[in-house]
Amino acid sequence: MTTEGKAAPALHYLDNNATTRPAPEAVEAMLPFLTDKWGNASSMYEFGGRVHRDMEEARAKVASFLGCDPGEIVFTSCGTESDNHAIFGAVEALGPATTVITTKVEHPAVIQPCRALEERGRRVVWIGVRGDGTLDMDAYRAALAIPGPKLVTMMWANNETGVIFPIAEAAAEAKRAGAVFHTDATQAVGKTTGVDMSAVPADMLSFSGHKIHAPKGIGVLFIRRGTPVRPFVLGGHQEKSRRAGTENVPYIVALGKACEMAAEETRDGTLDRIRALRDRLEAGLLAIPETSVNGNRELRLPNTLNISFPYIEGEAMLYHLADAGVCASSGSACTSGSLDPSHVLKAMDVPFTSLHGSLRFSLSRYSTDADVDAVLDAMPGIVKKLRALSPFGH
Amino acid sequence: MTTEGKAAPALHYLDNNATTRPAPEAVEAMLPFLTDKWGNASSMYEFGGRVHRDMEEARAKVASFLGCDPGEIVFTSCGTESDNHAIFGAVEALGPATTVITTKVEHPAVIQPCRALEERGRRVVWIGVRGDGTLDMDAYRAALAIPGPKLVTMMWANNETGVIFPIAEAAAEAKRAGAVFHTDATQAVGKTTGVDMSAVPADMLSFSGHKIHAPKGIGVLFIRRGTPVRPFVLGGHQEKSRRAGTENVPYIVALGKACEMAAEETRDGTLDRIRALRDRLEAGLLAIPETSVNGNRELRLPNTLNISFPYIEGEAMLYHLADAGVCASSGSACTSGSLDPSHVLKAMDVPFTSLHGSLRFSLSRYSTDADVDAVLDAMPGIVKKLRALSPFGH
Repeated sequence: MTTEGKAAPALHYLDNNATTRPAPEAVEAMLPFLTDKWGNASSMYEFGGRVHRDMEEARAKVASFLGCDPGEIVFTSCGTESDNHAIFGAVEALGPATTVITTKVEHPAVIQPCRALEERGRRVVWIGVRGDGTLDMDAYRAALAIPGPKLVTMMWANNETGVIFPIAEAAAEAKRAGAVFHTDATQAVGKTTGVDMSAVPADMLSFSGHKIHAPKGIGVLFIRRGTPVRPFVLGGHQEKSRRAGTENVPYIVALGKACEMAAEETRDGTLDRIRALRDRLEAGLLAIPETSVNGNRELRLPNTLNISFPYIEGEAMLYHLADAGVCASSGSACTSGSLDPSHVLKAMDVPFTSLHGSLRFSLSRYSTDADVDAVLDAMPGIVKKLRALSPFGH
Repeated sequence: MTTEGKAAPALHYLDNNATTRPAPEAVEAMLPFLTDKWGNASSMYEFGGRVHRDMEEARAKVASFLGCDPGEIVFTSCGTESDNHAIFGAVEALGPATTVITTKVEHPAVIQPCRALEERGRRVVWIGVRGDGTLDMDAYRAALAIPGPKLVTMMWANNETGVIFPIAEAAAEAKRAGAVFHTDATQAVGKTTGVDMSAVPADMLSFSGHKIHAPKGIGVLFIRRGTPVRPFVLGGHQEKSRRAGTENVPYIVALGKACEMAAEETRDGTLDRIRALRDRLEAGLLAIPETSVNGNRELRLPNTLNISFPYIEGEAMLYHLADAGVCASSGSACTSGSLDPSHVLKAMDVPFTSLHGSLRFSLSRYSTDADVDAVLDAMPGIVKKLRALSPFGH
């Protein structure tokens, strides 16, 4: 997609489930660690030691945000690494007889490790979802009845539809069944209340900094004290020997600041403002004939809208939206470039004619009425034009 | 170590094998990717696409520095991850009958994965070194004669002593024996000429950005086309499905700049200037009675000095050096906090009385005569004082 030869339109960024703008406050907080306080946090001298203290301050902010102890926070390089760590690490600790219970709508960062375990002969149970993207709790309960050691890995909120799984309930049932419970909360953290490890009995939780306005390249794995899980990246004794590698202090500090800001936003009305913007976008797009929202509209993140425009290609709509300065997506950035339709929408039995014509709009604190207006101004014309060209002859 | 209550002395940072000051040029190059060009490099629209192009430009710089094809460069989160990826990934691709050949003086990022493989029943051969830290080539050749699939993982230069292994020769012998050859070049890259993948037949090479003046949190794994190695972090299709996780573009761009600068320094006399400073430091410290250099003084990085002061504790010397503003180390930062003596010096049969009294000084392009003077001014008094207190009653 290109705007070469034309004046570039204003940017209307509505792809915040892919990545977010780093908060200027978070960037400002980290800069001294690139210019002045660059000592190795694991060194013995004060030039490293004071960096270590700043890192621990950031850890305390992350822990406070998640409602856990700072000693239960492990910094990783991304949400994907956190997921790999949780899944491979728990199965290694629990042993080869472990059954892995997951869902059909997880992010590739969970699906691929589970597939790799399957290839190595481990049993993996893939729980389905209903037509509105909500969890098939009966199938989940049946899986928990399988005897032997079990690991559950289940996303908190879906990256494509925003549908929220009942993680508090699912974790409690897992604990009753003696299973280890991990949740990929990458999309839930900062976008919904209730991500509170003092109230939810999950053993492990992953998330990624760049989805909450920290830079790309920092992630967190919460590991509740006593959880059976082996380290994933082996080497030095950093992160209390749970994650080797020299600590990325600038990004850790930025993440601490980003968590502080995200915590504030779960209380100050920002999420309600985002929801109102999303709802206005949704109502406007639903006025276009034959459109429909994918996913349960109540049990959903306030920032996400996944909507189908039957008979036309998502990629073509994105191309035209880009001309209007709008960034959105037809799936997740982690599967973009692939022509396969979304595995999430397929699991929801979205009809074929809608599967390829779905778009995801995802908002953040920086989203504005102008962003919503840009989409609502452009989309009716785009849809009309593309439907006229549709091979389905609609 | 603290200087509280006193005016802080000027910083004399001589611990560049632990981490380096980020180059202001590298930091400047990355900043736009935190403030303006923060799109997801894997997104389909131009706001992500142009970030992707900048990332590929950085990859080309790294490849040019290493003498390889950009398609052979995989960005990781650190040197430790690169080592884990190479070792676990190759053994998984080669199968459970694989023999791993490594050395007794590797960094923990190699030792720990090899130990984990041993615990899982894989055969690991640990090659020793001679008294001067150089490789026992006879033992290495004998190990290469073991039948079946083999992975060699061998450091290019030692982080504690700076001793350089004959990687071109070792890789060539490995290839003749049908083994896959990986080298952890974290300390060699940028500090010695000859790290050129167009001339050295290594299959894989790891290094870390923060040892060559890029930030902490970015690493590289060179994978020669056709090398049998499975991905380590599984999920999205980033890095051509060899390393999942949203790309850390700011640090990738910084690393590209850092490699460009490091490449220039292998030609412009900087390494000779660093060597001359190190040699002056060495000569000055050798004038203190009973001191001795650990490691072969010829086959050695130009920036590293490991020196023993028998009968006194390294930690005590570091404490006093810190009062003079000098940052140095008694081992690697990745093992600091541990009271065990260096496994590298033990493998070299350094006598017990010297083992605990060894210091490592490591220089960089930012090292100055004033840094060397600070050590040479302080050390004679420190040694005299500590020897007077020594339990060995020297």
